[in-house]
Amino acid sequence: MKVSELGEFGLIDLLSKMVSASQDKQAAAWQQLIIGIDDDAAAWHSNGLTQLATVDSFIQDTHFSLGMASWDELGWKALAASLSDIAAMGGVPKYALVSLALPGNTEVDDVTGLYRGMIELAQEFGVAIVGGDINSAPLVAINLTILGSSSLDERILTRSGAELGEKVAVTGYLGTAAAGLNMLTQQLQFDPEATTCFREAFLHPYPRIAEGQILVEQGVRTAIDISVGLISDLNHICIASQVGARIEIEHLPIQPLVKANFGDKSLELALSGGEDYELLFIASADVIDKLKMAVSCPITVIGEITPAKLSEISLVDRNGNPFNLGKVGWEHFTT
Amino acid sequence: MKVSELGEFGLIDLLSKMVSASQDKQAAAWQQLIIGIDDDAAAWHSNGLTQLATVDSFIQDTHFSLGMASWDELGWKALAASLSDIAAMGGVPKYALVSLALPGNTEVDDVTGLYRGMIELAQEFGVAIVGGDINSAPLVAINLTILGSSSLDERILTRSGAELGEKVAVTGYLGTAAAGLNMLTQQLQFDPEATTCFREAFLHPYPRIAEGQILVEQGVRTAIDISVGLISDLNHICIASQVGARIEIEHLPIQPLVKANFGDKSLELALSGGEDYELLFIASADVIDKLKMAVSCPITVIGEITPAKLSEISLVDRNGNPFNLGKVGWEHFTT
Repeated sequence: MKVSELGEFGLIDLLSKMVSASQDKQAAAWQQLIIGIDDDAAAWHSNGLTQLATVDSFIQDTHFSLGMASWDELGWKALAASLSDIAAMGGVPKYALVSLALPGNTEVDDVTGLYRGMIELAQEFGVAIVGGDINSAPLVAINLTILGSSSLDERILTRSGAELGEKVAVTGYLGTAAAGLNMLTQQLQFDPEATTCFREAFLHPYPRIAEGQILVEQGVRTAIDISVGLISDLNHICIASQVGARIEIEHLPIQPLVKANFGDKSLELALSGGEDYELLFIASADVIDKLKMAVSCPITVIGEITPAKLSEISLVDRNGNPFNLGKVGWEHFTT
Repeated sequence: MKVSELGEFGLIDLLSKMVSASQDKQAAAWQQLIIGIDDDAAAWHSNGLTQLATVDSFIQDTHFSLGMASWDELGWKALAASLSDIAAMGGVPKYALVSLALPGNTEVDDVTGLYRGMIELAQEFGVAIVGGDINSAPLVAINLTILGSSSLDERILTRSGAELGEKVAVTGYLGTAAAGLNMLTQQLQFDPEATTCFREAFLHPYPRIAEGQILVEQGVRTAIDISVGLISDLNHICIASQVGARIEIEHLPIQPLVKANFGDKSLELALSGGEDYELLFIASADVIDKLKMAVSCPITVIGEITPAKLSEISLVDRNGNPFNLGKVGWEHFTT
């Protein structure tokens, strides 16, 4: 069987099972492990803290196209997406390792631009870039490892704590980054305000590090960042927590500029667009009320957790009637 | 200027300076940092231990060719090379993150083979594979992050401690892996014993984790692993320590099978072949005598540290006369 037939998630599942079966119960590394392959970041106990580690790849023509963004923007975005995995665990990012693959005819100024973008964002969070390597390759690939730790005792956010009766909520707006991607790939023309808004959302996302830590402080246990798309990322929570979820589409927080410029398509952008790097989290209504006071960004309840036997995500319109959108989400390899 | 004109090491130096200039002295991550971009692994203080992190890429047609090795061997070798960076710091490897890029038409069995090779070696050292990602790409790229810690208090091996009068020594044999690479790429024919020996050295290296820890115990402070080649890797120590070195070529430990099958070329393989993943270290004659008792592999003194003003590595023959080999070592991008 080919990788394209099994799909990205099927392959990850298969490899995850192989690795699990190889566990050496005697080894200190396995004894201290809290979360392995199945979350935004790996997590393990270390002297009263939970250590976090995550790795992400950004490959030319898979994740980005040269020419669509400046190298500075590419550096910022790659690091933002990686830091977002630490935000999704409610953690503090500390160190970054950068592994670059480049064609030999790449301009040195472009590489320093890439680093300038990463350094600018790293400085915002006190993250130190401490290592990496550089290799020759026929295309550009940026591989980022982020190391961090829990922000409060050993407490972290995972995908597996969602319970029946809890609400599904998100930070910020959904679909704005996808609006930017559509604009750039299809050369869509908008007024200057919308153009800037969509471009910034897609190329200059700001990881929700502070908000993730506040979620932990307020007692939230379950979260993920929206990288692939709302439905796909919520599905990870449902599988890990063995629950279903119902999303009320009228409550999805969509930027007015996206609604005005994309009309009916804005709903699809919000549900499956991805790359907004907002936090999707599960909490009680009480906790969400407290969170709204504690964070500076919008917090919106978009649905609720449903019984596991549904084992699916249902979309309902304002009248509570089922709403079908067709295929949503995005997965590598499958078409 | 193009990356190919500046070269790999020039580019790393430039980016390293950019990152250094961005240091935020107030940030905890920077305050705790011991070693950043300039060593085999990054190192920082964490609750009485030194934490270590290293990342390595293995890119198709840059670092390996499909068909030259089985996927199991590729997995073993990639992880061995990464673990070797922790060995060079005298550390204990604990966690591995695996980031894979693959064409969609890759066989699933090949990917599980790759993981089987990695898992086999990981189990030898109690290393837990705890995360990573998988992405679609036109070629195979394996990116490995290894996290570990110091083995004894906060003590680690670095590149910068070499002092005048100390000896240059290596574990094991040099050039055997390069003999394997030559055999496989040039389809050279040898007898079964030599064929197995060269193939194993190239495709099945065993990282000197135990030996690195013993070096720390015995008071060694300066080491690197031989990945690029003896001269090139020794040069990293000389630059970091601001010393020169003299290598006595007659003392280079070369496998009899390599000498017998490669003749005069075996010296070049030993000096510049690389990928043996032996430890190259600097210590006093007394410490080296103790080490020879403490480790089970050969330890060979191959030269000594010379004054900084020489700022170069000189090769001498058995009569003490200068020996010139021409261009040695290997660097990405430059030709």
